[in-house]
Amino acid sequence: MTRPRIFLLQGPNMNWLGKRQPEIYGTTTADQLDDMCQAHARATGYELTIFYSNSEGAALDRLYHAVETDEFDGLVMNPAAWSMGSGAAIRDCLRSIAKPYIEVHIRNQYKIPHVSSTAELSDGVIQGMGCDGYRAALDAMFRRLTGSAW
Amino acid sequence: MTRPRIFLLQGPNMNWLGKRQPEIYGTTTADQLDDMCQAHARATGYELTIFYSNSEGAALDRLYHAVETDEFDGLVMNPAAWSMGSGAAIRDCLRSIAKPYIEVHIRNQYKIPHVSSTAELSDGVIQGMGCDGYRAALDAMFRRLTGSAW
Amino acid sequence: MTRPRIFLLQGPNMNWLGKRQPEIYGTTTADQLDDMCQAHARATGYELTIFYSNSEGAALDRLYHAVETDEFDGLVMNPAAWSMGSGAAIRDCLRSIAKPYIEVHIRNQYKIPHVSSTAELSDGVIQGMGCDGYRAALDAMFRRLTGSAW
Amino acid sequence: MTRPRIFLLQGPNMNWLGKRQPEIYGTTTADQLDDMCQAHARATGYELTIFYSNSEGAALDRLYHAVETDEFDGLVMNPAAWSMGSGAAIRDCLRSIAKPYIEVHIRNQYKIPHVSSTAELSDGVIQGMGCDGYRAALDAMFRRLTGSAW
Amino acid sequence: MTRPRIFLLQGPNMNWLGKRQPEIYGTTTADQLDDMCQAHARATGYELTIFYSNSEGAALDRLYHAVETDEFDGLVMNPAAWSMGSGAAIRDCLRSIAKPYIEVHIRNQYKIPHVSSTAELSDGVIQGMGCDGYRAALDAMFRRLTGSAW
Amino acid sequence: MTRPRIFLLQGPNMNWLGKRQPEIYGTTTADQLDDMCQAHARATGYELTIFYSNSEGAALDRLYHAVETDEFDGLVMNPAAWSMGSGAAIRDCLRSIAKPYIEVHIRNQYKIPHVSSTAELSDGVIQGMGCDGYRAALDAMFRRLTGSAW
Amino acid sequence: MTRPRIFLLQGPNMNWLGKRQPEIYGTTTADQLDDMCQAHARATGYELTIFYSNSEGAALDRLYHAVETDEFDGLVMNPAAWSMGSGAAIRDCLRSIAKPYIEVHIRNQYKIPHVSSTAELSDGVIQGMGCDGYRAALDAMFRRLTGSAW
Amino acid sequence: MTRPRIFLLQGPNMNWLGKRQPEIYGTTTADQLDDMCQAHARATGYELTIFYSNSEGAALDRLYHAVETDEFDGLVMNPAAWSMGSGAAIRDCLRSIAKPYIEVHIRNQYKIPHVSSTAELSDGVIQGMGCDGYRAALDAMFRRLTGSAW
Amino acid sequence: MTRPRIFLLQGPNMNWLGKRQPEIYGTTTADQLDDMCQAHARATGYELTIFYSNSEGAALDRLYHAVETDEFDGLVMNPAAWSMGSGAAIRDCLRSIAKPYIEVHIRNQYKIPHVSSTAELSDGVIQGMGCDGYRAALDAMFRRLTGSAW
Amino acid sequence: MTRPRIFLLQGPNMNWLGKRQPEIYGTTTADQLDDMCQAHARATGYELTIFYSNSEGAALDRLYHAVETDEFDGLVMNPAAWSMGSGAAIRDCLRSIAKPYIEVHIRNQYKIPHVSSTAELSDGVIQGMGCDGYRAALDAMFRRLTGSAW
Amino acid sequence: MTRPRIFLLQGPNMNWLGKRQPEIYGTTTADQLDDMCQAHARATGYELTIFYSNSEGAALDRLYHAVETDEFDGLVMNPAAWSMGSGAAIRDCLRSIAKPYIEVHIRNQYKIPHVSSTAELSDGVIQGMGCDGYRAALDAMFRRLTGSAW
Amino acid sequence: MTRPRIFLLQGPNMNWLGKRQPEIYGTTTADQLDDMCQAHARATGYELTIFYSNSEGAALDRLYHAVETDEFDGLVMNPAAWSMGSGAAIRDCLRSIAKPYIEVHIRNQYKIPHVSSTAELSDGVIQGMGCDGYRAALDAMFRRLTGSAW
Repeated sequence: MTRPRIFLLQGPNMNWLGKRQPEIYGTTTADQLDDMCQAHARATGYELTIFYSNSEGAALDRLYHAVETDEFDGLVMNPAAWSMGSGAAIRDCLRSIAKPYIEVHIRNQYKIPHVSSTAELSDGVIQGMGCDGYRAALDAMFRRLTGSAW
Repeated sequence: MTRPRIFLLQGPNMNWLGKRQPEIYGTTTADQLDDMCQAHARATGYELTIFYSNSEGAALDRLYHAVETDEFDGLVMNPAAWSMGSGAAIRDCLRSIAKPYIEVHIRNQYKIPHVSSTAELSDGVIQGMGCDGYRAALDAMFRRLTGSAW
Repeated sequence: MTRPRIFLLQGPNMNWLGKRQPEIYGTTTADQLDDMCQAHARATGYELTIFYSNSEGAALDRLYHAVETDEFDGLVMNPAAWSMGSGAAIRDCLRSIAKPYIEVHIRNQYKIPHVSSTAELSDGVIQGMGCDGYRAALDAMFRRLTGSAW
Repeated sequence: MTRPRIFLLQGPNMNWLGKRQPEIYGTTTADQLDDMCQAHARATGYELTIFYSNSEGAALDRLYHAVETDEFDGLVMNPAAWSMGSGAAIRDCLRSIAKPYIEVHIRNQYKIPHVSSTAELSDGVIQGMGCDGYRAALDAMFRRLTGSAW
Repeated sequence: MTRPRIFLLQGPNMNWLGKRQPEIYGTTTADQLDDMCQAHARATGYELTIFYSNSEGAALDRLYHAVETDEFDGLVMNPAAWSMGSGAAIRDCLRSIAKPYIEVHIRNQYKIPHVSSTAELSDGVIQGMGCDGYRAALDAMFRRLTGSAW
Repeated sequence: MTRPRIFLLQGPNMNWLGKRQPEIYGTTTADQLDDMCQAHARATGYELTIFYSNSEGAALDRLYHAVETDEFDGLVMNPAAWSMGSGAAIRDCLRSIAKPYIEVHIRNQYKIPHVSSTAELSDGVIQGMGCDGYRAALDAMFRRLTGSAW
Repeated sequence: MTRPRIFLLQGPNMNWLGKRQPEIYGTTTADQLDDMCQAHARATGYELTIFYSNSEGAALDRLYHAVETDEFDGLVMNPAAWSMGSGAAIRDCLRSIAKPYIEVHIRNQYKIPHVSSTAELSDGVIQGMGCDGYRAALDAMFRRLTGSAW
Repeated sequence: MTRPRIFLLQGPNMNWLGKRQPEIYGTTTADQLDDMCQAHARATGYELTIFYSNSEGAALDRLYHAVETDEFDGLVMNPAAWSMGSGAAIRDCLRSIAKPYIEVHIRNQYKIPHVSSTAELSDGVIQGMGCDGYRAALDAMFRRLTGSAW
Repeated sequence: MTRPRIFLLQGPNMNWLGKRQPEIYGTTTADQLDDMCQAHARATGYELTIFYSNSEGAALDRLYHAVETDEFDGLVMNPAAWSMGSGAAIRDCLRSIAKPYIEVHIRNQYKIPHVSSTAELSDGVIQGMGCDGYRAALDAMFRRLTGSAW
Repeated sequence: MTRPRIFLLQGPNMNWLGKRQPEIYGTTTADQLDDMCQAHARATGYELTIFYSNSEGAALDRLYHAVETDEFDGLVMNPAAWSMGSGAAIRDCLRSIAKPYIEVHIRNQYKIPHVSSTAELSDGVIQGMGCDGYRAALDAMFRRLTGSAW
Repeated sequence: MTRPRIFLLQGPNMNWLGKRQPEIYGTTTADQLDDMCQAHARATGYELTIFYSNSEGAALDRLYHAVETDEFDGLVMNPAAWSMGSGAAIRDCLRSIAKPYIEVHIRNQYKIPHVSSTAELSDGVIQGMGCDGYRAALDAMFRRLTGSAW
Repeated sequence: MTRPRIFLLQGPNMNWLGKRQPEIYGTTTADQLDDMCQAHARATGYELTIFYSNSEGAALDRLYHAVETDEFDGLVMNPAAWSMGSGAAIRDCLRSIAKPYIEVHIRNQYKIPHVSSTAELSDGVIQGMGCDGYRAALDAMFRRLTGSAW
């Protein structure tokens, strides 16, 4: 079987991870998280593309390009602020590209409280477990793409 | 009389028309729609500029440039997701440029339900008639600019 | 091909058009609008029946009669006040007769603001373009009935 | 004992029963329902007057006439759209005539959801059982008028 | 000076005054109230036309006819249930005819509570004083039409 | 019969009448209004006490004093701002003193829109007729106290 | 044909019927109601199981047991307080067991007002007719199960 | 290191898993899920206690007993209907026992939409991935208890 | 005079008092509170029955049993989570048993904020004073039952 | 130990106690209540200052004076209407003076329903027990100030 | 040019500045703030009148007196609690006196959150900068009155 | 002391200042405002960087770059449309960079009304004073950074 390909999209302000309110988001930086995810990809057996954007429009352009060039099989995204009302375009894009999608949040959004506006379009949501949530999300996407989910 | 000039602005995800949820938005692609609109412009007698953008900021830059260089007389726009809360900047821009504006939606927004936040700034709204709504909007703008509206 | 038949229903107070708040609704009278619509019907090639009613019950009786005697193929209506909460019966009727329906409003309802309660049952909505909206609506219905819509 | 007299009032669009959204309201027509109700009246032993109206004003005129001429002992009504905000006058009328009143709906209004605005004035409500609800309502009114209710 | 002409419109169920929930609306009947109002008109020096209707559509027809034939100078109305959501058409009509308008309610609507939807279109509102409110309203309209208001 | 005694309480900012937003409240000053009311009292045959207060606490003290010394039979009040949320104490006071009470507003509160919070405690409300509303209120209170209301 | 089997579930506090607010719920006790229902079952020709529970969890256990052992064909329930927000589990259970279900309330819930949260899952609702409503509900369920409904 | 002990609490109706709306919740039965979870526990290296309850009170008793006898280190729960308003007691209990808690839902609650009322008390939430979500939750709890989370 | 008998019902999670969020609820345990209350009962001269339940259904069973066997004269209850939406059944029960009832909360509910749904059925509410509130509630109930209240 | 000093502040309209809606507030007058409270103070062993005010501003002046001259240790207040939206200044004052505060209401506010806006600032609330609530409040404040609360 | 005259009105509880919740409002006392403002007035070149009031009615009396005797050109006010619903009278007063008005708050009201009800009547609002906000407000008013604003 | 460095960020459509709705925003152009601000910076003694962006993503990139290269000590921003729901990303960014921040609006937002969603993250807000508000904001930031604020 070919290795599944996962696209990890990091929303606005995620480039500042580790420096941004570390009492909330932890001290792992974006670079460190990328390394951990890529190592996990190699260990587990999938290809991983990571893209950061502060601009919703640029994210749409990148996603449509990735779909047109057939770059990935499943999408994992931390929509960050795009899940807070300002993400109507990314919602429409998610509906358009029609790929398996798992959403991840570092914080437990139920504590804020905040209802993500993109989550209703996902196949699953994992939140509140800090950076470990990325591992859980990538695991789950991998099991889904390889048909090994329970 | 000089030929009126109409600027058609296509909002986010409209570049994916025809591939995006075709059961809702139809199978006419963005390229095909452009051809139909340009053919209509030639047949009716107006000049048509078409601009697509996934980025609200880029759309503002483009619109202000068009105003400064006096490119158009009337605006037709499908604001797509910009009409869903995330379009506060485009609303301010519409107020600023003060040109005749007709808004078009492929779907009947009353069925969703969704209240467009840019529509209150328009001179008219046409929705629910699929791609044919563009023709109706361009016709109406043409009649308005040429003083031939009832 | 036989000529399509369109039924134009004018809701309450529309008989007073031209005399009713002309700064909002314009100075074209109901009689003048009827003449313009009939002329348009002859020029375009469809049959047009126009009915005014201040009474929702009478409108229902008229519509059911028209359906029973097979008078029309498509409905264009300006529901006026029936779109403002008091039109629950006309809504049920629209659901019952199941014909193509395009709704027209002289004003841009998004500016009031008001959400028409009948619009969700229509195939399309045109508003804000004064009496010219009737022409756009009749054009659109004609194209729909003749299969010439884009 | 004299035979109780029941007045059955059918609200707007009920004349179209059987033809109106039959997947929801069934295929029994208004005429068939009338026959079934009259047969039930004969079998059970009460007099039944049935009145259909699409116009709330006409229904008020008819009800006040019936009260003035002492035509009935209890009212059964399917208010249809009059229970949806547009029935303020029929509500006042129900308060005025002060007769036993049982309300019937073909659909289960709790599934829509919709809160009937006339039901609070009734002595009982039966809904969701299709045309069979009329029989249950007439049975219940008969038992109430004859003092045979549990 | 010519005698001012006042049109008194009685809304739905007002024909049942005196018989309708007398503990709330009193025992004065519609006929008695008419006599008292006409006597007051003679004593004060104005002409009074009284019209009752249970049907909003019929009321609109009557009002437009009265305007077209120049029957009155000022309108006094007890909108009854038309002030409760179902009176969108009468509201548009009040805007259209543009005559002085005073609204009267037998009950104090603030006790129910209920916010009349037609009252915002009136020049004055008098409520809570039973039938005496009609006298106060007619007096106030008379003073307004004759320029004798403070 | 003894002459009825009416207490007229003018709420906050009423001392500035005639100078306060005259395009809304007119140019009649508080002194002129007092003279007109006293003249009306003499002509009609009742005693009139007028009290202005910018302070709700002072108004309560004055009202309780008036009740304890049996100064009046009926209360007419323009609560002004006390009807806008800040009048919870005056509401309790109205409930406590249990006298006939008619409320008057110079403006039609339905146009603002504003729902007076004291009006539910009144026997009647008159509004929208400028200073003439005071005459209507005093007339109505006089008729009520002398039993000459319809 | 075999006799249909109906399961009647009485929710919390129903064991106290007759003693519980008799001015609202009447003086018929739970025992008397059971006897009346069983007599009706014998007379009509169906089997009736009656179960009372103050505990939602116990009711779920009982219902799942009844389904597993195939005890009944149709469910009649007075959910009482379970219809007031606290019945999320019983709602899920109703969705799970997928049997015909008719809901009965002794009071007319529209008068309280209260919107039952379980009623949307029923095939019909009967309310406001006191204990007689049980007879109407059992009758209706019998006609449904035997195919004799209109 | 000692093996971590996880307590898995299954809320109301979860005993019916596999039979309950299988189009939504899948066909895996409660017994099968238990086996899969226990197998996962053995493979991963933790002890797993599973408890089902339809009764919130019984769940509280069980949880307090487990705390008093020091049975577990971390809690995984599918609160089912207890997350829908009726779980105020389980919420208080979660606050009281103060153990790591991960919540799992088979469905993506954002699609319903429903905001779980217990989720704000969890350290993480996993939803929308069917029974596979249990594995992700148990993995995450295991990593948290063993300090191997990223 | 016979000694009054007071029933003290402790709602869900109250068994965990002293261990449950002691920074909020204090460190007095349920056993200690019972001793203090019983000592107070002996010193003051009333009989006290204390019952704890985590299950609303069990509480109903216990209360109905107590009423049937005439165990008590007045009820004091800390409804805990039953006052938070999930206590519809206990509310109905309170209405049914019709005994004097005083509600006590350890916390000041106005600070949370939370509006108890059972408090409206009480004769008095005492809250915010920690365990001392039980003494105030028992004192007040004693004075009420012995007729020594002011 | 020195005797604790309690300040009892009676809000607007409390001077009218006994005469004000006695069916709700009872027939004990303000003077009688003062005597009862002072007798209770002597018997219990604390000093009591009582102050009535209809004016919020005057109450603030009095309270700040009392704080500056160190007149009291704890505050008991019946805020009356100041708890109904109009008491924003008293709320700020309560925050400023930072003394123990117990709020008392004669009525059970949960029955009205009304959420006191000052209660969130109190250490405890006692309501619904008529004038006896003052005794409970003074008792509780005494126990709190002397450290004898449970 | 004559020196501009500024009136600084300090709302309720501002007399307690420095002692009132100093962690929020700082430790500068009212006296110190007055001295700083007067020194600023001398240095900048304007006359400054400062008035504190806990009573809204007294503030109205003072403001109307100041207007009648022509004491000031511009108003700076910290409305404190009058901006929280209880200030309907001060709002009407601001509308009446029609002078330039700048509102100042020590705290950033957007953090509370609270929407000042008087701010909509101001020409500018400055908040969140502690006592320094008074300087900014006085500067801005000075520039406005002297025509030196940008 | 080193000169403080202030970063002035101008949100979307601010480039159009002077041409954009001049009746609201004035006729000072963006270029003129820049000159005035730079002149003020030189006169007062601070360094000023000004950045305009129509794109929220570009603004984030610019701000993070400025923080990484240590360009500024305090931020002044007119968020314009980013304060209207579409600025969730800029809000997160403001939380991340943790610099003193003063927000300025040309209009008084309380008049619109509009509650800025970024203002809660600021140290102060100045609004309603046109372009002069920029001077007040820069002054206030300068005083804050130099420790010369009151």
